[in-house]
Amino acid sequence: MTRSTRLRVAFQGERGAFSEEAARTLLGNRIVTVPRANFAQLFRAVRDGVADVLLAPVENSLAGAVQPVHDLLLSSRLHIVGEVVRPIAHCLIGCPGASFAKLTAVQSHPVALAQCERFFAAYPGLQRIAADDTAGSVREIIARGDPRRAAIAGEFAARAYGARILRRHLEDHRKNFTRFFLLSPAAQPIRGADKLSVVFELRHQPGALLRALEPFARRSLNLLKIESRPIPGRPWEYRFYLDVRARAGAPLAVALDDLKRASSRLRVLGHYVCAKEN
Amino acid sequence: MTRSTRLRVAFQGERGAFSEEAARTLLGNRIVTVPRANFAQLFRAVRDGVADVLLAPVENSLAGAVQPVHDLLLSSRLHIVGEVVRPIAHCLIGCPGASFAKLTAVQSHPVALAQCERFFAAYPGLQRIAADDTAGSVREIIARGDPRRAAIAGEFAARAYGARILRRHLEDHRKNFTRFFLLSPAAQPIRGADKLSVVFELRHQPGALLRALEPFARRSLNLLKIESRPIPGRPWEYRFYLDVRARAGAPLAVALDDLKRASSRLRVLGHYVCAKEN
Repeated sequence: MTRSTRLRVAFQGERGAFSEEAARTLLGNRIVTVPRANFAQLFRAVRDGVADVLLAPVENSLAGAVQPVHDLLLSSRLHIVGEVVRPIAHCLIGCPGASFAKLTAVQSHPVALAQCERFFAAYPGLQRIAADDTAGSVREIIARGDPRRAAIAGEFAARAYGARILRRHLEDHRKNFTRFFLLSPAAQPIRGADKLSVVFELRHQPGALLRALEPFARRSLNLLKIESRPIPGRPWEYRFYLDVRARAGAPLAVALDDLKRASSRLRVLGHYVCAKEN
Repeated sequence: MTRSTRLRVAFQGERGAFSEEAARTLLGNRIVTVPRANFAQLFRAVRDGVADVLLAPVENSLAGAVQPVHDLLLSSRLHIVGEVVRPIAHCLIGCPGASFAKLTAVQSHPVALAQCERFFAAYPGLQRIAADDTAGSVREIIARGDPRRAAIAGEFAARAYGARILRRHLEDHRKNFTRFFLLSPAAQPIRGADKLSVVFELRHQPGALLRALEPFARRSLNLLKIESRPIPGRPWEYRFYLDVRARAGAPLAVALDDLKRASSRLRVLGHYVCAKEN
């Protein structure tokens, strides 16, 4: 199979990132993954033609909404065509010859370091070093080749760089999951779609949010999530991102019509298959 | 007046930060301000006895909710006793002898640099340097004394370090405001209170959020803001932070009773005077 016939999937981070592993979990190993340094570059990748689709983290079960991704999703005009949820399990990763007893320093992204407080409390002699990226930290410790320094990252990053896993499950909370959206420039009906994401802005009047949500409750369509984001240039006004569990059909169509009437602006972001772990 | 009788107010950031200016706007100049390096240390300041109250940013009109402050507010058991909204206006700040024509580099916090895109597009020769803090950048350029380097920060930071303002309003969006809460360990009735903040967790059933909001709408109590945050250890379940415009009285009391019945957990965070700019 030539490179040009494979689906090119952009992700944020370095090779071995949790996002790359999520892309392979959702789409299999016959894809070409395209790393991008930050979220703005990730969303530009499809527009610039270096990727066909992109995978973006939207929410972590401990940290909450990934705010910039919500804003970029709206301005990108891309469509949600899939969803995947992955556990975030942190490994302690060293050079091929490293051993735990000889470690003196551990580097990773500050958020990953903060999620392993109990580990660092148990080993106060280990110096913590903040770095730009989890998977990038693995790349760096392998490049340095210093057996006294380890990284914290996912198992997938250890495999990507041929590094050695010294400990597993350093994270304080086992129930740590990240939810990702697969985003495509092409809107297309998806077989078995059972989850819909919509963004809307309300007319500014008392009870407006209630009138927006009521059409779903009346038809027993379960709201999974509501997220508010500021409207730039209109301080203290918000747009709302709503996830609804619903198959295609009259109840959903009528509820969306009602919501449209209660809104000054509305866009369906996608109707897709809900991730199993969600 | 001795130091011990003055109100000690903790804020996050270095001397001259927007948060310190907000504290003085709300409380006047007879307070003692206590800088803290990060949000965790800010919330510890009152518990550790180094401050009487603290001022924390909860929301920016462009960037949205300050997520960690919402979580820390809930776990702190502090009470909201006041609110203040401040415009975020970025100045270009140099050493006392500096002139704009001779600048080669500008340093600030990455968020502040990103909010001045148009300025940097107009002067592509200026190198951008990321730093930990806006006010801290002013302190650093004064300490270096290099007239070729400037900082981006608020006017208050320039005054705090005796620096020179070279340009004003570098920000792309003039409508850029940050909202702060004044937090106190003591709950006390506040005269003229007209805004209430409450956090609640819902029983997990369809239509639960609707039943939680309906008691306010039915009594024409205007919902100003709803913010969702994940519940740690319960993936894809949320707690909601609600701001309601309401004076003390029967309608509010009955609405809160109704909300309590729809919730598995509820806490009133404070009933305080709404900031004028809000």
